[in-house]
Amino acid sequence: MNINRQWLLAKRPDGLVTQDNFEYSETAIPEAGDGEVLVRNLYLSFDPTQRGWMVDRESYLPPVEIGAPMRAGSVGQVEVSNHPDFKLGDIVQTTGNWQDFVVAAPGQGPMGLSKLPEGVTPEMMLSVLGITGLTAYFGLLDLGMPKAGETVLVSGAAGATGSVAGQIARIKGCRVVGIAGGQQKCDWLLNEAGFDAVIDYKSQDVDAQIKATCPDRFDVFFDNVGGDILEAALNHMNLKARIVLCGGISGYNATAPIPGPVNLMNLVTQRARMEGFIVLDYMPRAAEAVNDLLGWIASGELKYQIDLQSGFENIPDTLQRLFTGQNLGKQLLKIADPR
Amino acid sequence: MNINRQWLLAKRPDGLVTQDNFEYSETAIPEAGDGEVLVRNLYLSFDPTQRGWMVDRESYLPPVEIGAPMRAGSVGQVEVSNHPDFKLGDIVQTTGNWQDFVVAAPGQGPMGLSKLPEGVTPEMMLSVLGITGLTAYFGLLDLGMPKAGETVLVSGAAGATGSVAGQIARIKGCRVVGIAGGQQKCDWLLNEAGFDAVIDYKSQDVDAQIKATCPDRFDVFFDNVGGDILEAALNHMNLKARIVLCGGISGYNATAPIPGPVNLMNLVTQRARMEGFIVLDYMPRAAEAVNDLLGWIASGELKYQIDLQSGFENIPDTLQRLFTGQNLGKQLLKIADPR
Repeated sequence: MNINRQWLLAKRPDGLVTQDNFEYSETAIPEAGDGEVLVRNLYLSFDPTQRGWMVDRESYLPPVEIGAPMRAGSVGQVEVSNHPDFKLGDIVQTTGNWQDFVVAAPGQGPMGLSKLPEGVTPEMMLSVLGITGLTAYFGLLDLGMPKAGETVLVSGAAGATGSVAGQIARIKGCRVVGIAGGQQKCDWLLNEAGFDAVIDYKSQDVDAQIKATCPDRFDVFFDNVGGDILEAALNHMNLKARIVLCGGISGYNATAPIPGPVNLMNLVTQRARMEGFIVLDYMPRAAEAVNDLLGWIASGELKYQIDLQSGFENIPDTLQRLFTGQNLGKQLLKIADPR
Repeated sequence: MNINRQWLLAKRPDGLVTQDNFEYSETAIPEAGDGEVLVRNLYLSFDPTQRGWMVDRESYLPPVEIGAPMRAGSVGQVEVSNHPDFKLGDIVQTTGNWQDFVVAAPGQGPMGLSKLPEGVTPEMMLSVLGITGLTAYFGLLDLGMPKAGETVLVSGAAGATGSVAGQIARIKGCRVVGIAGGQQKCDWLLNEAGFDAVIDYKSQDVDAQIKATCPDRFDVFFDNVGGDILEAALNHMNLKARIVLCGGISGYNATAPIPGPVNLMNLVTQRARMEGFIVLDYMPRAAEAVNDLLGWIASGELKYQIDLQSGFENIPDTLQRLFTGQNLGKQLLKIADPR
């Protein structure tokens, strides 16, 4: 294979992302310069935040340019190394983007370049030990500050981030209630992830069910969804509740601005806090999180689910799975096996 | 005068409060029991939060019952004392409600019963040293955490709370921008209260003017208004901005739920925080605030404005002044002179 297959951003989305937003292309394999490494992507990470990168507006990362390969986290294998810390065949994580090959170097790009620790699989690195796992860890613990005995509510609870956030809360001694869509996800949360209660937003009245499942109200809400679910949650805060704004997937594909919750002033009467964060700010503390997460995986306290698709041609469709709720756990796509 | 005049809550409001929501009544003067004091109200405090007390819903204080005198903070004079700490003629603050006489005791009611410190006038006690001043002090300093050199934006900036919050920010070395309605209020903020810039929401585009007056964005937003002004502010947050949710007067008289800001997710990209509070929680620390505030008044660094109405018959109309923006500074009404 002497070509570099790519999916380029062809046009910015209006509403749900479709195949039309991307264009297939083939280019020459890039060359690694001094201090750089050529990586062949094996696994791509799919994350709701990618939807935001497709829009031309100021955010925590610059938008992907039209005609550039779509930005994505990846795990790959070193094909050429001009850097003393990396050798041929090393399995690494980086910002590989939607293409076969990327030139990378430590400290460059949003996720830099680093070798996978001993015993860590690409699936683990791109999920529970990766951006989504670290998002759950730092968001829940640093912003949510859950204390044993408190009630923690999680939306998008069966997702890659929500499921880890809820389980960490359980490990910390909290009562955990998850909101997810569909019986299969709810069953997994109850039976595998050890949530104390679940709410199926597709078949249940979320407001009434938060009230029913949180008789003492909630102390922490880890929110991945926003919209109506955030509004419902704002009716059931305990005094001094902390709402961790992780994301708002319900609004990511909106074609017009979506009004916020009508009951925001409940934050005043409940002396409550709503706070946003971006996990990239916590990268200097990543080792702390990985250490804890690995321990909980080893002890069996922390479960994770991978939704693994395959095939370079299926990359654009796989992104759409996130926004239709099809994915069960962390959405990945495998491009190739390691050599 | 052997009667106790009262304004009772007659019906709960739907939209703007009108005279119809209250009913004039006369009863016998109540009697003070053991450990209690009979207070004759001299000055009543008018506060936007009173609108919330008129509604039958759970909040930080129970709603005023239909047929009960409207709840209000007051300064009055002791007429009968059965408590060793109070003597005839003492000037005190308490929750006097809309009536001539109230039976009060230390530790009872939202504001208890306490003598005015030496040199403190009733006007000061019910404004800059009272609930509104303490709201500004603790909200700005404890939640806003302004640092010298930061930009602090204040809405309802000419009000009793906003004007004090903005001036404390200025005293702490911040650049202060105020949002208020009308030339007279804006002039006072610039010329008397020492704000660095003002925005007249009645004649200017608030979003564009925040951008123009906060070239480095804002670090703290002390919000008394909510609604469109909060939405505009959310477009101009610095990283790690703190939004102090003090109140949302723009929505207090709404007859239907008002949608929240469309851009709440900016809290995520800006790693920003929005937090509510109720000043009653800070009453154990009141002396700390009063000490600082008195010092700043004495040094001339802190200015305050009193809008003093008079006449028992004008009590209901005076409440309405808050919601039509007529008041210039803290709204008070004088019922009687001390003996």
